[in-house]
Amino acid sequence: MDEEGAIGVFDSGVGGLTVLRQITLRVPGESTIYLGDTARVPYGTKSPQTVIRYARTCARLLTDRGIKMLVVACNTASAFAVETLRKELPLPVLDVIGPGARTAVRKTRTGRIGVIGTSGTVASRAYPDAIAQLAPDAQVFCKPCPLFVPLAEEGWTDGEVPRAVAHAYLDELLRENIDTLVLGCTHYPLLARVIAETAGNAIALVDSAEATAEAVEETLGRLGLGGNGLNSPQRHFLVSDAPESFSRVGARFFGSDLEHVEWVDC
Amino acid sequence: MDEEGAIGVFDSGVGGLTVLRQITLRVPGESTIYLGDTARVPYGTKSPQTVIRYARTCARLLTDRGIKMLVVACNTASAFAVETLRKELPLPVLDVIGPGARTAVRKTRTGRIGVIGTSGTVASRAYPDAIAQLAPDAQVFCKPCPLFVPLAEEGWTDGEVPRAVAHAYLDELLRENIDTLVLGCTHYPLLARVIAETAGNAIALVDSAEATAEAVEETLGRLGLGGNGLNSPQRHFLVSDAPESFSRVGARFFGSDLEHVEWVDC
Repeated sequence: MDEEGAIGVFDSGVGGLTVLRQITLRVPGESTIYLGDTARVPYGTKSPQTVIRYARTCARLLTDRGIKMLVVACNTASAFAVETLRKELPLPVLDVIGPGARTAVRKTRTGRIGVIGTSGTVASRAYPDAIAQLAPDAQVFCKPCPLFVPLAEEGWTDGEVPRAVAHAYLDELLRENIDTLVLGCTHYPLLARVIAETAGNAIALVDSAEATAEAVEETLGRLGLGGNGLNSPQRHFLVSDAPESFSRVGARFFGSDLEHVEWVDC
Repeated sequence: MDEEGAIGVFDSGVGGLTVLRQITLRVPGESTIYLGDTARVPYGTKSPQTVIRYARTCARLLTDRGIKMLVVACNTASAFAVETLRKELPLPVLDVIGPGARTAVRKTRTGRIGVIGTSGTVASRAYPDAIAQLAPDAQVFCKPCPLFVPLAEEGWTDGEVPRAVAHAYLDELLRENIDTLVLGCTHYPLLARVIAETAGNAIALVDSAEATAEAVEETLGRLGLGGNGLNSPQRHFLVSDAPESFSRVGARFFGSDLEHVEWVDC
């Protein structure tokens, strides 16, 4: 396929496919190339130095294929590596944290915002920092929810187990009287229903994947980077390990089958 | 510390510490050096080729430090990489699958054996193959239980969530009328109580960590490799990423605090 001018998207694994899905819904005419760094998944438990090293490798592989924009569709890599990538790369680099933070600030009425994510994302304080820049008076309450990732990958998105896990993680957060809850991990949209049921109707959920897709559309328009719409859009998927497993699990995250999954050494 | 003549043990992360714990209980006078490959954890979702590459790197790092025996304390690496390591290394290489399989065959009366582990270990068919060599008539029923690893790492080893997860995974296996169940993942000893409650009294659990420690003692004796007992044993821990997190989570797996955790580039 012709990859020149595609939107490049990377994540440590399948999670970023929820972001890709929202991008393809919002700018359906754009070609995309997705890299899942499945040989090194997960990033969420690793140190900033290690995550930056991996993110650089992923970014280089995608820029070598001529992408016009890079989306870091991984909260941990967004937290640790986006500033480095922005300095080093000659193209727009979008992350998932900025858009999620902006949407949360727009939605909250009381200024009490909850954020859930991996241990790495929560420890990075990236969401509280991003929210504080936009709304210095907001109060942000964070909770790492490590089991949500394997639940989503298992496809256990409904029933007794995810409900029990959601209560175990969220009950304490809910006692802080938050009115907005950011799904600060790209796996969590698969659990949105059980999270919403646990949180109750009064709490607005922020899906970082949707917020990021909005930012992609806005950035393409602002920089005049939108495609000409003359060719049919291409979807290309790359992984650094185990393409079959990626295809099988990833289809649930992307919402449809993944064609052209190619192994790359990175 | 003087690492010459220590027993080298490696795993992708903290799980192998349950094996190390049993080794230190069984041969308490032996010095040990443990490597947790936390930069690449988990191995259980990765391809055989990738796991072999990682296992070689870990083994080389430990043999460079003069160990006298290598224990592959990771079921996935045991399944994929032990034959390669045995061919390439000039010292005894023990795995966790052979000892677990031998103990299961010794314990079963009906020949109906259950095995639980990561997706990688189950897909490898390493336990059924090892059991078939020892007891060709045995029937082996396998079930991957991916959520048990994050449960153990979260310290959720008791209560509603692990019970619900254990039922979701084990009920189908129990309907096969197994009389023996192999904990085919080094994380699972932390969940032994909830697994035993779910399985019921009639089913014998096989802890691969205990079985491996027995094999270590037997091999040291058989090859005349036991220490002279003149020096006090050293415990040394190496990790390829995030030593603090390893120390914190690992203490639960080892059963006491981990001192001297050192970062290594591998």
